[in-house]
Amino acid sequence: MSSVMGERVKLTIFGESHGPSIGVVMDGLPAGVELDLAAIEKEMKRRAPGSSKLATPRKEPDSFTIESGFFNGKTTGMALCARIVNTNAHSRDYSKMKEIMRPGHGDYPGYVKFHGCNDYRGGGSFSGRLTAPLVFAGAVAKQLLAKKGVTVGAHVAALAGIRDDRFNPLGETAETLRSMGEETLPVLNPDVRETMAQAVTAAQKEKDSVGGLIECMAIGLPVGLGEPYFDSVESRLSHALFSVPAVKGIAFGDGFGLAEMRGSESNDPMQYRDDRVVCTTNHNGGVTGGITNGMPLVFTLVIKPTPSIGKTQHTVNVVTREDTTLEVTGRHDPCILPRAIPVVEAVTAWTLLDLFYMAERG
Amino acid sequence: MSSVMGERVKLTIFGESHGPSIGVVMDGLPAGVELDLAAIEKEMKRRAPGSSKLATPRKEPDSFTIESGFFNGKTTGMALCARIVNTNAHSRDYSKMKEIMRPGHGDYPGYVKFHGCNDYRGGGSFSGRLTAPLVFAGAVAKQLLAKKGVTVGAHVAALAGIRDDRFNPLGETAETLRSMGEETLPVLNPDVRETMAQAVTAAQKEKDSVGGLIECMAIGLPVGLGEPYFDSVESRLSHALFSVPAVKGIAFGDGFGLAEMRGSESNDPMQYRDDRVVCTTNHNGGVTGGITNGMPLVFTLVIKPTPSIGKTQHTVNVVTREDTTLEVTGRHDPCILPRAIPVVEAVTAWTLLDLFYMAERG
Amino acid sequence: MSSVMGERVKLTIFGESHGPSIGVVMDGLPAGVELDLAAIEKEMKRRAPGSSKLATPRKEPDSFTIESGFFNGKTTGMALCARIVNTNAHSRDYSKMKEIMRPGHGDYPGYVKFHGCNDYRGGGSFSGRLTAPLVFAGAVAKQLLAKKGVTVGAHVAALAGIRDDRFNPLGETAETLRSMGEETLPVLNPDVRETMAQAVTAAQKEKDSVGGLIECMAIGLPVGLGEPYFDSVESRLSHALFSVPAVKGIAFGDGFGLAEMRGSESNDPMQYRDDRVVCTTNHNGGVTGGITNGMPLVFTLVIKPTPSIGKTQHTVNVVTREDTTLEVTGRHDPCILPRAIPVVEAVTAWTLLDLFYMAERG
Amino acid sequence: MSSVMGERVKLTIFGESHGPSIGVVMDGLPAGVELDLAAIEKEMKRRAPGSSKLATPRKEPDSFTIESGFFNGKTTGMALCARIVNTNAHSRDYSKMKEIMRPGHGDYPGYVKFHGCNDYRGGGSFSGRLTAPLVFAGAVAKQLLAKKGVTVGAHVAALAGIRDDRFNPLGETAETLRSMGEETLPVLNPDVRETMAQAVTAAQKEKDSVGGLIECMAIGLPVGLGEPYFDSVESRLSHALFSVPAVKGIAFGDGFGLAEMRGSESNDPMQYRDDRVVCTTNHNGGVTGGITNGMPLVFTLVIKPTPSIGKTQHTVNVVTREDTTLEVTGRHDPCILPRAIPVVEAVTAWTLLDLFYMAERG
Repeated sequence: MSSVMGERVKLTIFGESHGPSIGVVMDGLPAGVELDLAAIEKEMKRRAPGSSKLATPRKEPDSFTIESGFFNGKTTGMALCARIVNTNAHSRDYSKMKEIMRPGHGDYPGYVKFHGCNDYRGGGSFSGRLTAPLVFAGAVAKQLLAKKGVTVGAHVAALAGIRDDRFNPLGETAETLRSMGEETLPVLNPDVRETMAQAVTAAQKEKDSVGGLIECMAIGLPVGLGEPYFDSVESRLSHALFSVPAVKGIAFGDGFGLAEMRGSESNDPMQYRDDRVVCTTNHNGGVTGGITNGMPLVFTLVIKPTPSIGKTQHTVNVVTREDTTLEVTGRHDPCILPRAIPVVEAVTAWTLLDLFYMAERG
Repeated sequence: MSSVMGERVKLTIFGESHGPSIGVVMDGLPAGVELDLAAIEKEMKRRAPGSSKLATPRKEPDSFTIESGFFNGKTTGMALCARIVNTNAHSRDYSKMKEIMRPGHGDYPGYVKFHGCNDYRGGGSFSGRLTAPLVFAGAVAKQLLAKKGVTVGAHVAALAGIRDDRFNPLGETAETLRSMGEETLPVLNPDVRETMAQAVTAAQKEKDSVGGLIECMAIGLPVGLGEPYFDSVESRLSHALFSVPAVKGIAFGDGFGLAEMRGSESNDPMQYRDDRVVCTTNHNGGVTGGITNGMPLVFTLVIKPTPSIGKTQHTVNVVTREDTTLEVTGRHDPCILPRAIPVVEAVTAWTLLDLFYMAERG
Repeated sequence: MSSVMGERVKLTIFGESHGPSIGVVMDGLPAGVELDLAAIEKEMKRRAPGSSKLATPRKEPDSFTIESGFFNGKTTGMALCARIVNTNAHSRDYSKMKEIMRPGHGDYPGYVKFHGCNDYRGGGSFSGRLTAPLVFAGAVAKQLLAKKGVTVGAHVAALAGIRDDRFNPLGETAETLRSMGEETLPVLNPDVRETMAQAVTAAQKEKDSVGGLIECMAIGLPVGLGEPYFDSVESRLSHALFSVPAVKGIAFGDGFGLAEMRGSESNDPMQYRDDRVVCTTNHNGGVTGGITNGMPLVFTLVIKPTPSIGKTQHTVNVVTREDTTLEVTGRHDPCILPRAIPVVEAVTAWTLLDLFYMAERG
Repeated sequence: MSSVMGERVKLTIFGESHGPSIGVVMDGLPAGVELDLAAIEKEMKRRAPGSSKLATPRKEPDSFTIESGFFNGKTTGMALCARIVNTNAHSRDYSKMKEIMRPGHGDYPGYVKFHGCNDYRGGGSFSGRLTAPLVFAGAVAKQLLAKKGVTVGAHVAALAGIRDDRFNPLGETAETLRSMGEETLPVLNPDVRETMAQAVTAAQKEKDSVGGLIECMAIGLPVGLGEPYFDSVESRLSHALFSVPAVKGIAFGDGFGLAEMRGSESNDPMQYRDDRVVCTTNHNGGVTGGITNGMPLVFTLVIKPTPSIGKTQHTVNVVTREDTTLEVTGRHDPCILPRAIPVVEAVTAWTLLDLFYMAERG
C-alpha cells in the first residue's frame, strides 16, 4: 500500500469504508491561510452519496471534523488533519465478499496481495469511499489556487456513449468552470443531460452500469509548472488521477486524436498578444515539453462502467477454490462518473498546488 | 527539473545533447547480477539514430562506458553508472533556437521557466537524446525481469492513421514480444508495414511529420504488483511513460473504448484453470483495483507527430519580442514513433522492476 | 512542517496537544500480522504523564482507537491509523504563550516561521505530546522486530550528572533489555536510582530541571542493515531520533571517546566463533561502514534539561516587542528523560524495521 | 545502497575509487546562477590527497569536468553533473582485500550485504574517495548560500586528545570562518597546531592513527529553517553528516555538556537588540524546537581514528573462513580529520541549502 502522495504538499489518507472513520493528513500547507469551511462542505456534498437518483441511495452526510492544523480560522502550518466518521455502513451487505471475488474490482488481486487479510467489507481501503478525504484536500487546494488566479472545472464529456460538447480549448471563463459544480450531471450542452440520465436509468433497470469520459480544464496557470524529465505536468497529473477508482485512461489536449494528425496541424502556433505569448490553437492541452505553456490545461479521462452490477457474472470463490456466479446486491451507483467529477477536480487541484510549490526555487 | 525517478530502484539521468556526455545512475540494483552487455548494446541500437531511412540520418553510435557498479562481470550492489559520449553534435544547426521558439516543443515554457539560461542547442535537457540512458536502464531492468519470467514488448499499433492488429489481450508468447525488437517498424500484421513506411515518406516529402499509437504488453507478471491508493500500476506506469517525449495519452486495456461499454461487458469474468484464477477476457488490461491481476498487462500510448518540421510555422522571437515564422532545418525524424518503442519498453521494464521491489514486504 | 517519516514503512503524525485528537498513520506494514494490543497499551503507559512523582502530575490515559488497517485481529496491509483523544488540556494554562516566548523551546522560531499562526497552546505541533503516537508506532514495530529476533531496550545512562553503569557493549540479554521497560527510572545499577530521584526532586524544589543521557541497545540484528552512502544506520537513526524533543546529541559505540583513541584501540578485532564472525570488542557500536556488523547496536543520546521551568527567565514579548521575564507555571516534568526512554525505543524500533525492509532486494 | 540525498535539491553520487571515474549529479539547482569554478577547484584541493605530509602521499589532482547543467558560465536549471577521472589507482595494493576484512572498515558487513560482489579495491563505493564529488556539490552550495549571506566554516576542535579553543558560540566573523579553509590544520589557537602535527607524526611512526573532533559553524542563517517534526535542522544535518566516513557522533551547541546542566543554565535567554530578537547565550547551538533561531548554528562531530593502520590486527579471511592477522600497507592518512573538514563543510552547506528551499512556501 502507498497511502502518501505528493512532494511539497504531502497527503496521507487512512480509513476503510467499514471502519470507525476515514481521513486525510495534509502536510506542507502554508501557515495563516483562512479556510472557507462552507465551501469545503459544498465540495464534499458534490461527491457524497444519496444526492441524486442517478447515484447510490446510501446517504452519508460526510461531515468532517478538523483534528489539527487549523486554529482561529487559519491554517497553522502544521499537518492539517480532517476526519469523517463512517455512519452508514451495513456490514451484512458485504458478507459474501469474503469468499466471492467481484469481477472488475480489486478483490482478487487484493486478496492475493494481502494474503486474505484485507478488510473485504465495502472494498476495504480500495473503496471509492476514500475519495471523500481526497475531496476535502482538493477543496483546500482549490482555495489556495484561487488566490493564484487558478480555477479548475470538469464536466461529463460522454456518458453511455452520449457526448457532450467539448470545452473551448482556448479557454472557458472561471464562471463557466465553477458553474459545472452546481449540477449533478454537469454538461456544456444542456440538451444531452436528460438523454444521459435516461441511459443511466435504462442500464440500472437492466441491473447494469455505464461509463464515460470526464473532461477537465484548469485556467489561470502560469507558464512554467512541471519538472521534466520525470515530474512533468502530465506525469504528475496522470499519477495522481489514476488513483481515482475507475479511471482507465488519460489524454492531454487532443489526446488520441493526435495520433492521426500531422505535425503541421498538432503544433500550436505562437504569437504575441498584448505583449504575452499565446498559442492560436491548443492541441497540446496547455503542456509542451512537459511544462505548462500558458494555455488552458485540458485533459480527458476514461471512467469505466461501475463494476458492481446486479447482473449475473462468472467469477471464483477463493475459499472453496471453485467457479461460481455472483449478482452484486446492495446500494451501488449505476454510473459512478458524476460523483467522480468532484474527485477528479480535487486531485487535479492538489497536484497543481504541489507543482506550484515545486516550481518555486531559490 | 526532476532528474530522479523511482522508489526502490532510483534512476538519475544527466546530460544535454550538446554537452560532453549524457548518462544514467541506477541506484538500488541487487548485487551479483551478471549483465549481458551485448544485449544492452542491442537495445541501445534500436533507439539510436541513423539506423533506418525512416529516422534522422544523424548517426550516433551511442556506445556506452560503465563508470561504476559493475565488477568482474556482475553488479556490485552500488550505484551503476553508464555514460554515453556525445559525438555528433552540430551546434551550428541550432543557432536560431536561442531566439525563435519551436512550436510543439518545450522551448517557450523552458525559456520562461529557466530565465533563458537553458542550453537551447538541441533542446537541452528536454532533448529526446536523454532517452538513450533510459534505454540503458531499461535493458538492465529487462534482464532482471527475465529472471522473474517477465517479458515486455511493444509494436506500432497505428502510424499516420494506418492501424496494425492488436495484441491478443489474453496474451502473446514471449517469443512474439521479443521478436518485435528485431524490426525497425515492428507490427503484427506485416502487410501494413510498407503502407506505414510510405505514409512517413510522404509526410517527409511535404516537410511534415506523423504520429501514431504504441501498444505495449508485459507477460509473466505475478498477481499483486501495484501499491494503491497512490502507487497503483497505472499511476506508476503513466508517471514514468509521460517522461517519454511526445507521449500525450495512455490507456489501459480497452482504454477509451471502455467509455462506451456496460459493466457487464467490461468486467472480466474469472474462472479457475489448472488451479489458477484467470480472466476469460482482458478489457481491464491486466490491472484491477490498481493491482496486477495475473492477466497480461496491456496499454496503449499516443505519440504525437514530431514537432520539428520543415514546413513554415508561425511562432515568436522571445528576444526581439516579435512574431515570426520558422522552418526547422537540420536532421529530424519525420516520425519519432519507431525510435520511441524501445524507450517505452525500457521505461515500462524499469517501472515494473520497481513495483516488484515495492511489493516485497517483511 | 514535515509530518511524514520513512522510506518503506512511512509514518505520518498529526495533532496538537490542545486539538481534539492526535494520531499516526502507518503505511507499508505487511498484511496478516497479529498485534498484541495489550503490549501496545503497556508501551503507551510508559510514556503517558502522571505515572510517577518524577513526572508531570497531568494525567492522560492515552488510550487509543484504531481507525483502520486492523481487521479480525490482524493487520490488513492497508494504512494502520491509531488515534488518541486529548482529554486533559487546560487551555488557560497557556494563555501567556501567545505573546511570551519560552526560552529553550521552539516558540520563537515557530512564531516567526508560521507568521504567528501556530497553535501556541501547549507548544502546538511541537509539543512532546506528539510522541504518544510515535510510541504507538514503535510498539507495533517492536512486535514485528521480535519475530525477527530483535530486541530494543534503553536505560538512563546519566541523570543530573549521576551516572549509571553502561550496557555491556558485547551484548545484554533480551531479558535485561526488556526489563528496562518495567521501571520508571530504568538503570543497570539499582544503587543510583534513588540518588537520581533525589536530584530530580531537588531541582524541582528550586523550580529548575535536569537533563541526562539515554543509552539504547538493539540485539539480534543481522549483518547488513543500512544503505550507504546516504542511508547508513547512523544516518537514519540520527535523523529519526533528533525528532524526539530535547535530544541534542547522538554518538554510536564509544562515541565522543573515540576522539581520543588510536586506531589500534578503536578498530574492533574480528574472529570466527562457531563459524560466525564476531568482534572481540565493540567500540564502533555495531556499525562499520554505515552497515550493521552483527554486534549489538549501541548509541547514546543527550537529553537537555526540560526547558519549562518555574524559575524567572529573561525573554521577549513578540506582540509588544519588549523584553520581559517569564516563570513557566503549569504541570511540567522536572526531568523529561524517563518519559523520553520509551519514545527513543519506539523511534529506534520503527527505523530498524524500515532498514530491514530497505535491505530486502531482488 | 542509497546514492541519492536531499528533498528540494537532490544529489546523486556514483563511482568507485578504482573505476574509471566518480561523480555527482545535482538536481534542483536554480537556473542562471554564475559559478566561480576557481573557487570550486580550491575547495576540491583542500580535500585532495597529497597536499600535506600529515595526509596520504597519494597525489590525485581531482580536477573535474562539468558534463551538463552549465552553459555560458551559468547554471541552466537542469541536472548539474560533475565528473572526476580516477588517475592514481594502484590496484595491486588492494589484492588482499578480497579475502581479508580490515577491522574498523565496512569490509565485512559490505561483503555479507553484497554477497562478495562489491568492488573491494580501495573500499569500493564506501571509499572516502566518494567525498570528492560531495565537496564539489558543497562548493556549489556555498556559492548559493553566500548570496543569502550565509558562511560555513569548521576547525579541528581536538586531535589526538589535544584541544583547540572553541568557536565563540555567539558568532565568529565570516572572515574567521573562511580563513579556516586556508590552513591544512585549521585551528583557532595557533599554539596547538604544531603539537597536533607532532601527535599525528608520532602515531604514524608507530604505524597507528588518531582521531579527533571537528567543530562547525554557520552564520547568517535566518530564523525558521528546519521542518519539524521529522525534518528538523538537527535531523537533516545529522543524517547528511553521518554519510561522511569516520563520523561517529554529533552534538549541537553544548552537546553532551547539556546532560549535566540545569534548565536555568541551558535555556538561552532572549532579548531585543536593535529590534531583533537575540539570545544572550547559545547553549542550544542556534536550534530550538528543531528550527534555526537566528543564533549561529554550531555543532561538533567525532571523527574516529583512521581504521587503516600498519600495526598487526586480528581479523578474518572470509574465503578460507579462518582467523588471520593483517597489517594494512599502502598509502593511508594517519589522521583523516584535516581532510574531512572540507567534506563536513560541504555536506553542511548542501543540507542548509536544501533546508532553505524547503522553508519556502506558497
